[in-house]
Amino acid sequence: MRSALLVIYRVRSDARSIEARAKTIAVEQSVEMPVEAIDEDTIKSDIVGRVVDIGDVGNGIFSVRIALATETVGCDAGQLINMLFGNTSIHDDVVLHDAEIPDELAATFGGPRHGIRGLRERVGAGARALTCSALKPQGLSPARLGALAHRMAEGGIDYIKDDHGLADQSFSPFEARVEAIATALRGLGSNTNYVPSLSGDLDVMRGQVVYARSAGIDTVMVAPMIMGFSNLNRLMRENSDIAFLAHPAMAGAARIAPPLLLGKLFRLLGADAIVYPNHGGRFGYSPGTCRLIAAEALGILNGLKPALPVPAGGMTTERVDEMLDFYGADIMLLIGGALLSAREKLVEETADFVNAVKGHRYGR
Amino acid sequence: MRSALLVIYRVRSDARSIEARAKTIAVEQSVEMPVEAIDEDTIKSDIVGRVVDIGDVGNGIFSVRIALATETVGCDAGQLINMLFGNTSIHDDVVLHDAEIPDELAATFGGPRHGIRGLRERVGAGARALTCSALKPQGLSPARLGALAHRMAEGGIDYIKDDHGLADQSFSPFEARVEAIATALRGLGSNTNYVPSLSGDLDVMRGQVVYARSAGIDTVMVAPMIMGFSNLNRLMRENSDIAFLAHPAMAGAARIAPPLLLGKLFRLLGADAIVYPNHGGRFGYSPGTCRLIAAEALGILNGLKPALPVPAGGMTTERVDEMLDFYGADIMLLIGGALLSAREKLVEETADFVNAVKGHRYGR
Repeated sequence: MRSALLVIYRVRSDARSIEARAKTIAVEQSVEMPVEAIDEDTIKSDIVGRVVDIGDVGNGIFSVRIALATETVGCDAGQLINMLFGNTSIHDDVVLHDAEIPDELAATFGGPRHGIRGLRERVGAGARALTCSALKPQGLSPARLGALAHRMAEGGIDYIKDDHGLADQSFSPFEARVEAIATALRGLGSNTNYVPSLSGDLDVMRGQVVYARSAGIDTVMVAPMIMGFSNLNRLMRENSDIAFLAHPAMAGAARIAPPLLLGKLFRLLGADAIVYPNHGGRFGYSPGTCRLIAAEALGILNGLKPALPVPAGGMTTERVDEMLDFYGADIMLLIGGALLSAREKLVEETADFVNAVKGHRYGR
Repeated sequence: MRSALLVIYRVRSDARSIEARAKTIAVEQSVEMPVEAIDEDTIKSDIVGRVVDIGDVGNGIFSVRIALATETVGCDAGQLINMLFGNTSIHDDVVLHDAEIPDELAATFGGPRHGIRGLRERVGAGARALTCSALKPQGLSPARLGALAHRMAEGGIDYIKDDHGLADQSFSPFEARVEAIATALRGLGSNTNYVPSLSGDLDVMRGQVVYARSAGIDTVMVAPMIMGFSNLNRLMRENSDIAFLAHPAMAGAARIAPPLLLGKLFRLLGADAIVYPNHGGRFGYSPGTCRLIAAEALGILNGLKPALPVPAGGMTTERVDEMLDFYGADIMLLIGGALLSAREKLVEETADFVNAVKGHRYGR
C-alpha cells in the first residue's frame, strides 16, 4: 500500500473469533469479495484492507486497526465515509472508533477555512469564550424570530443561530426569515452575528448562501449527516468567505464514535465550529466523550486549522463557570431554550449569560 | 395539527418513566425548547409534537407514536429525515421504528418513477425474478471490469452493477469505466443492463448521469445515506428517464429500523430498486426483518409504485430456490462474490444462476 488510511473499529467478539472477524471487516471495507478469487497481485498488496493490529480493550470488546488504501477514497468526501464505514455500519457488532487521516486527504478536504480565529474576529472578541443562542421554536413568523434576535443582541450575545429544525417552511421561509432577522439586527451597533441554517439540496443551499451573503451574513449552519459529506465539502470550497457551523443532526453517534465523527471528520471537511451535545444536558454523552470531541476539534490534525467546539443541548447560565473550567476559552457556549424561557426578561437573561462568560476567571 | 406525520419510536425505558420520556422526544423532534416558554397558541396546537399513544412491547421496550406537523417538513427530503430522527438519533435509548407518510409528502417526493415494471421492461423479462451481479474488486482497471461484465452477460444475467466501493478512483475513473463496460456489452445481443454507481457531490453526479446516458445507460446506483436525501430526490426528479437502484451503505440500520429506512423511505424518495442484506449472508438481518423490508418496498404506500427488493450480501446460486420460495417473483437476486469466485468458469456459473431463477417453479 503506497499510502494508508488507518481505521480503528471497536468490535464485540470473543478472543477466539476476533482475528477472523477483523479480516472480514478489512475485506468488507475494501474489495468486498473473496480474496482468493482475486487474480491481480497488485490488488492483493495495494487495495485489500489489511489488519494492522488487534487489542483487547476488555468486556468482550476488541480494538481493530485496519489499513485501507488512500487511493480508494480518491478526492470525494462521500467516498471517505463510505470507505470508513459504508457496509460495516450495517453490522451491529462494530463501532467506527477512530481514523488516522493521511496528509494527502487532509490537503484534499482542507479543514476549516476560518476556524477559531475567524469566528472570534467576526464578533470582535479577543481570546475569551464566545456566546451563542438559538432562534426557536419552529412555527414562529420571521418577524417574531427577528424580534427575538433583536433582544438577544441587546443582551450582547456573539452568535445567534437558527434552530436546526428551521428549514424552508411555510411559516418562516428561508429568505423572509433571513431578511427579517438581518434587518432586526442592523443598526443596533452590536457585533452580534446571525447564523442561518441551510437546508435542501446542494443547489438550494447555494442559493441560500447567495441570499444570506447579500444580507450581510458571513456564517451559516449545516448538518453534514443530512446534506452528505460530498455536498458539504463542495459548498465549503465554493464559499471560502463563509464560516460554517456544523450541527450533529442524524449523527446517530452511538455507531460512530462522537470524537471521530463530530470532532475530527466534521473538522476535516471544513466545519469552522462544531455543535455537539454537552454532558449533563439533554443527551447522554459523558464528560470524557465531550472532552475528546473538543480535543479532536482543537488538537493537531494534519496541520489543519482548529475548529471551535460548541457544546450545547440543554445548557444554562448556571453552568457557564463549570463549562469554562472544563473546556477553557477556546469554545463557544450555546444556550438556547434556557434563555428563551426567560420570556419578557430575555435581554437580561442573555446579558447575564454574556457577562458570565466575559467575567469568567480561567485557571483559578 | 392540520396534517400529521405519525412517527413510531421504540424506546428503552421503565413503565414509570416512559410517559415523560415520550413527551421529551415529541418536543425534541419539533420545537426543541421548553413548551411552557412558548407564547403562541397556534404553535402549541399545530407545531409541538404530540404523543399519540404508548404501547409496552415487552423486555423494557415501549412503542411510542408521535404526531409531527407535516408542514415542518416542507418539501425537503433532508428535512424529512431531520424531523423523523435528527437530534433523537443521538439518544441511544431510541430506535426510529416506523412512520406513516401523509399523502401530501408522498406526492411531494414521488416514489419510484419506473419501479418493478420498468426494471423488468429494461431487460425484456416477464413476471419472473430478475438476476443481478456486481463488478469488483475495486482496483481493477476499466478493461478488466469490462471483461468481467462481458462474461456475466454471456451467462445471461439481467443487471450488472458496480460494487458500491467503485467511485471515481484513479484505477478506474468513472467515465473510463462506464465507457469500457458499455463497450464490452455492446453488440453482444444480450439484454444485460449495466448499472454504474454514482459518487461525489450533486453536480458531479449530474455529470455522471449525463455521461452514462450518452453511453446508453438507463439505470444507476446511488447510496442515499451518503449523498443525502435532498440531493437524491433532486437527482431523481431531474432524470425521470433513469431508474435508480438504492444501496444501503452507511445505513447503520441498527438505529433506524431497516424496513422503514430501506423499504419505505428509500422507496418514498424514488428508488426503483433497493439493495439490502439478506438473512443468512454476511449481515445479521433476520428472515423477519428481510420479509418486512420486502413488504415495505412492495406493499401499498400512498399509491406510489412498488420498488423492487434486491436481497444481497453473500448470496449463492444454491440459495436461489429458497430465496424465491421466500420472496416470490417480485424480486431481483444479486449474487456478486460467489459468481466472481468461479473465475475462469464465470460464464457457466452466471448461467447456472440465471437458469436457476428462470427455471424456478413458484408455489410448489
